[in-house]
Amino acid sequence: MGWIEELGKICDVFSASDSYRYDETPPLIAPKPAENFVVVKPADAKEVSRILRFANANNIPVFTRGGGTGLSGGAIPTEEGIVLSTERMTEIEVDIENRVALCGAGVTLKQLDDTAYKHHLSFPPHPGAETATVGGMIATNAGGVRALKYGTMRNYVLGLEVVLADGRILKLGGKTIKNSSGYSLIHLFVGSEGTLGIITRAKIRLFPQLRDMTVLAVPFSTMEDAIDCVVEISAKMLPLALEFMEKKAVEVGEKVSGEKWVSRDGEAHLLMIFESFDEAEEAATISEKFGAINVYAATTKKDQDRLLKIRGLIYEGLRKDIIEILDVCVPPAKIAEYYRKSNEIAARYGVNLITYGHAGDGNVHQHPLIYDDWMNSYFNFREELLRLAVSYGGVISGEHGIGVVKTKELAELFPDQYRIMKEIKHLFDPQGILNPGKVVR
Amino acid sequence: MGWIEELGKICDVFSASDSYRYDETPPLIAPKPAENFVVVKPADAKEVSRILRFANANNIPVFTRGGGTGLSGGAIPTEEGIVLSTERMTEIEVDIENRVALCGAGVTLKQLDDTAYKHHLSFPPHPGAETATVGGMIATNAGGVRALKYGTMRNYVLGLEVVLADGRILKLGGKTIKNSSGYSLIHLFVGSEGTLGIITRAKIRLFPQLRDMTVLAVPFSTMEDAIDCVVEISAKMLPLALEFMEKKAVEVGEKVSGEKWVSRDGEAHLLMIFESFDEAEEAATISEKFGAINVYAATTKKDQDRLLKIRGLIYEGLRKDIIEILDVCVPPAKIAEYYRKSNEIAARYGVNLITYGHAGDGNVHQHPLIYDDWMNSYFNFREELLRLAVSYGGVISGEHGIGVVKTKELAELFPDQYRIMKEIKHLFDPQGILNPGKVVR
Repeated sequence: MGWIEELGKICDVFSASDSYRYDETPPLIAPKPAENFVVVKPADAKEVSRILRFANANNIPVFTRGGGTGLSGGAIPTEEGIVLSTERMTEIEVDIENRVALCGAGVTLKQLDDTAYKHHLSFPPHPGAETATVGGMIATNAGGVRALKYGTMRNYVLGLEVVLADGRILKLGGKTIKNSSGYSLIHLFVGSEGTLGIITRAKIRLFPQLRDMTVLAVPFSTMEDAIDCVVEISAKMLPLALEFMEKKAVEVGEKVSGEKWVSRDGEAHLLMIFESFDEAEEAATISEKFGAINVYAATTKKDQDRLLKIRGLIYEGLRKDIIEILDVCVPPAKIAEYYRKSNEIAARYGVNLITYGHAGDGNVHQHPLIYDDWMNSYFNFREELLRLAVSYGGVISGEHGIGVVKTKELAELFPDQYRIMKEIKHLFDPQGILNPGKVVR
Repeated sequence: MGWIEELGKICDVFSASDSYRYDETPPLIAPKPAENFVVVKPADAKEVSRILRFANANNIPVFTRGGGTGLSGGAIPTEEGIVLSTERMTEIEVDIENRVALCGAGVTLKQLDDTAYKHHLSFPPHPGAETATVGGMIATNAGGVRALKYGTMRNYVLGLEVVLADGRILKLGGKTIKNSSGYSLIHLFVGSEGTLGIITRAKIRLFPQLRDMTVLAVPFSTMEDAIDCVVEISAKMLPLALEFMEKKAVEVGEKVSGEKWVSRDGEAHLLMIFESFDEAEEAATISEKFGAINVYAATTKKDQDRLLKIRGLIYEGLRKDIIEILDVCVPPAKIAEYYRKSNEIAARYGVNLITYGHAGDGNVHQHPLIYDDWMNSYFNFREELLRLAVSYGGVISGEHGIGVVKTKELAELFPDQYRIMKEIKHLFDPQGILNPGKVVR
């Protein structure tokens, strides 16, 4: 790393530290971070441009880092090089009349939410941890619990400022929700995980504020009943959230939160959020028709928070015990079948699997608990799960992205697409300096 | 065209006819179609693949044609070659439980609407003429009046089957609304206007059926009042449609439809559609606050149809008198200012401009009427309008696409993006056989 001194002439350079070495990827599956790297914290696209021109000329890897909340190793510096943190790009401004937030890449989800709220607007999707950044959420096309009604991150990106590997600064899109002006470069950068360019600013669509919410908690005897109910509700309306949890997941959530769920009985539980009381009522009726053990309506904020906390803390309760967190997406009506079959496969491998997720959009989160000698069989097990999801018309990652942890599967399951992705990568980053080894390699 | 006989060994070949020579692009601006071409009507991706392999090997241009309802010359065969019509790919099937329509590229909007309705579902955006095809709507990322609430075509494409220039068949995506599995090739094909690959099938997201509608017709003294009202309403709710018309446009609509609009007074008129009566009431109150001359609520289907007909037939009434139909998109709050300034520019050039459009999403339709010697000055005039829109944070095409008619402006106004688009084009279609001269050249 004899180039550090040279880099220091361009921008401030900070030494490596653990805060830039890891993201939230569970340690067993996370890639090994490099021992040596440096950290830069550019303030804007121009500074990023100078850094990239230098890195490109000297063939130095650049790992872009947002909030570090990713779960696929996307932000981990896996080679000696530069970690480019967006932490100083936190300016945010709202064009109230046009309902657009002009955000630096380092603006956090909480900052965006709060700023929108202050202007009597909202950013509905809630696609990540509160410390996730706008740049990171765009780079992974983050999803979250509200995708059924409000879409994923992709639906909110109206404009982007991106710095290319060779330092060119691109300004894409505008402040409009319609755009049919040539190939959508915006949508190529959305979900590209820092491998095609570095996002420095974004124009994010805001919405009117959400209406008052009603929350239903509904236990079912079987996953099949619960998912049949989900299918019927989704045919009639678009709830704000439609979550499912298997019993084991509820128990974990109860334990960490110290709260009690609505029932001891039932294999599968739905947690639904509605923006309209009428819709909640209709959904309650449907739930009963589909064999709900009970329908519990939470109308007070306190009650709602208690239930949401149980769902919200499941991952927290499991993180130390798991190999990783899977996030396949299947057509929603196939969740129960996927759940059964994935558990059969798990039994065959001796894996204890805890399953919950976003029933409305089919995004299934599965936590395989750590077991002895997992290294010997886990990856075969996992590939079977991913193949199963794809066989139903699903995808291997619904919201966490490919990062490092699924490049092999992307290449194996989708060889034709993978080849084209590699060609696109080469087009944008011929030297391969941008987040090397991520998405494609 | 000595290759026709060879092509005939692969598929049925039909001779050129006027039905395949033009699309809906106004004739003055439309590119000159080739004298000689042949037409093929493949039944599926495999047949398309054989045709493309042949065309690619022999360097023969292939012009893909859907419903031929485009307004930018995208479907016009501008060179000797093959017109590939998707008219035989009309199979449609609905996965009711997962609310996905599996469509051949040639399925029409009407067929999609009707099929969804039959299954108690809906395809909300209504992004084109009823004879527009699914393939064509995807290829242009079509928009329409409901984009504010329901998004453009892009938001509905969950999966695609595409044939590449060299005959490879790609299957992209699945039946899920979440997908973070590498670079989104789907979104690269959406809006690519037949230049990167040929769309043969698509998985289209369906929604629950829409609620009963209420329609408001509201005249305002000035465009500024009308647009201020639009901005305020959009901050509070998402109407199904929020259209504006200048007085001249209303008069055209009245004349063609034989219906009477709600008022003789007012420079600017709003036509708003709501899925909730409460929202319509709130919007009526806001309209009064913003100086509405009158608020007319149409609650019967007959009354609503009468008003919508006036708006719907404006283009029909003008098509013979216009040079073309422009579709810039500006941030919605800038519509009035854009309207004023574009009319100042028009006055300077002696152009009579008729303006209306989708106020909710900022998509402005402008019809310059034919004038003497228009060829001498029109293109300068037009470039000024496009630059003006972009200066507000707008885009040069909101929904019609680039086709042939805006490639020059795309190249001039966005040289960096254009260069990258050309590189992408070259990556997918190195011989340049797919819809040559469209989008990029």
